[in-house]
Amino acid sequence: MSLIPKSHPRAKSLLIREKLVEGFDNGLVAKEGLLAQGRGEAFDYLLGEKTGKAAKSAIKAAAAQILLAKLPVISVNGNVAALCPKEIVKLAKLTGAKVEVNLFYSNQKRKNNIVKTIKKNGFSEVLGTNSASKTTLKGIDSARRIVDKNGIFAADVVVVPLEDGDRTLALRKAGKKIITFDLNPLSRTSQTAHITIVDNVTRGMDLLIKECKKLSKKNKKSLEKILENFDNRKNLSENINEIKNNLTKRLRIA
Amino acid sequence: MSLIPKSHPRAKSLLIREKLVEGFDNGLVAKEGLLAQGRGEAFDYLLGEKTGKAAKSAIKAAAAQILLAKLPVISVNGNVAALCPKEIVKLAKLTGAKVEVNLFYSNQKRKNNIVKTIKKNGFSEVLGTNSASKTTLKGIDSARRIVDKNGIFAADVVVVPLEDGDRTLALRKAGKKIITFDLNPLSRTSQTAHITIVDNVTRGMDLLIKECKKLSKKNKKSLEKILENFDNRKNLSENINEIKNNLTKRLRIA
Repeated sequence: MSLIPKSHPRAKSLLIREKLVEGFDNGLVAKEGLLAQGRGEAFDYLLGEKTGKAAKSAIKAAAAQILLAKLPVISVNGNVAALCPKEIVKLAKLTGAKVEVNLFYSNQKRKNNIVKTIKKNGFSEVLGTNSASKTTLKGIDSARRIVDKNGIFAADVVVVPLEDGDRTLALRKAGKKIITFDLNPLSRTSQTAHITIVDNVTRGMDLLIKECKKLSKKNKKSLEKILENFDNRKNLSENINEIKNNLTKRLRIA
Repeated sequence: MSLIPKSHPRAKSLLIREKLVEGFDNGLVAKEGLLAQGRGEAFDYLLGEKTGKAAKSAIKAAAAQILLAKLPVISVNGNVAALCPKEIVKLAKLTGAKVEVNLFYSNQKRKNNIVKTIKKNGFSEVLGTNSASKTTLKGIDSARRIVDKNGIFAADVVVVPLEDGDRTLALRKAGKKIITFDLNPLSRTSQTAHITIVDNVTRGMDLLIKECKKLSKKNKKSLEKILENFDNRKNLSENINEIKNNLTKRLRIA
């Protein structure tokens, strides 16, 4: 049970941190995942711990891209499974996306724990652990190159929340359209993806589901138009400006 | 053996991260310490992963302050012991400072592991584990209020790298001159300390040792002049501006 009082000015951030530590204790999250969460906390702090205007427009583009996909796949790692397993399942069911577990710091036990968590949240067919359908992505030298040939390998659109730069680049080179969640608008992942949602995954995933629901009533042409009007580079610049403005504001208060 | 591909553009930062993870495996670092390291990584990234001009001038002031001290004490926690035990010992021997172990997430076993690490690096008299010389600091409600009466309690200058805001404030209220290392120039610790070195402890501690060596040849008056010319608030503003400038630069490159 959490000891964090709801009145704490940063209670939300501390509760997210507790989820991660719990995920670590339950064998979902790697030690490196705790560090990654720390990095995210710092950027979220600089973004004011809220979903900004730029993030909202990236979420809209991401929803359009997922709805236009022939075979969308959501790639899940330990931190994602610890932070928003319910939302991943909701998004997959709503859009017909497949779910695949893929880890940078590979570990069969941890993989199985992640699969179990996703299953417990109502999604039975999780890819990424069947060695019979394993294949490899080129241009990547970690365990992450191993993917499922019926999942990420065959996908046209891949949602890779909280991903590292090498893998994002390899997926892009493999011809996939890449959607990511990354709180650092300057990271290689952010710069490499086609659509980067600069937002905390615990806030943004919910908004993405809502946007998918909303846009599912639109026709193909309207969805394509949303994508045409989205410029990831420009969107990232807007996020960087949001951070700069926050720094100026805080400097004045300090 | 390291799993980090040498081709990775941020291998150095990843290797520091591995030191922390190793420290965690060896019972030095708490889970929360891994998250804290992650937050530090993000700010270091925004500072360009180099020691800036503002940090150099804070290091100079810190060296002067330590050399002027009657009883300087270096407070060591798990992250510090994992990242720079050799440097802590060098600094202590060079300046006659005492070394005291003090933990936020207290744990006798972890304390003993930290003491062992410092001893292994050549410093035998580590304070903070002798219950006969325990006493408490007022105005702080975690295990960190327990200090050694011959160490931090008696000190006039305390070096507290990677410290939390509550304890920094309590030490300041107790009349100590506080020197800290903190990569977030906006944190309460940064804002509370007398001298805040906004730098990665793995870079800055070495520079602090060099500066102490250099300034040890100066007389008291010169050292006092260095301190008089140092303004922590102004220095923090300069660090925030460095971050803003880096964001602008990277935005242009991206």
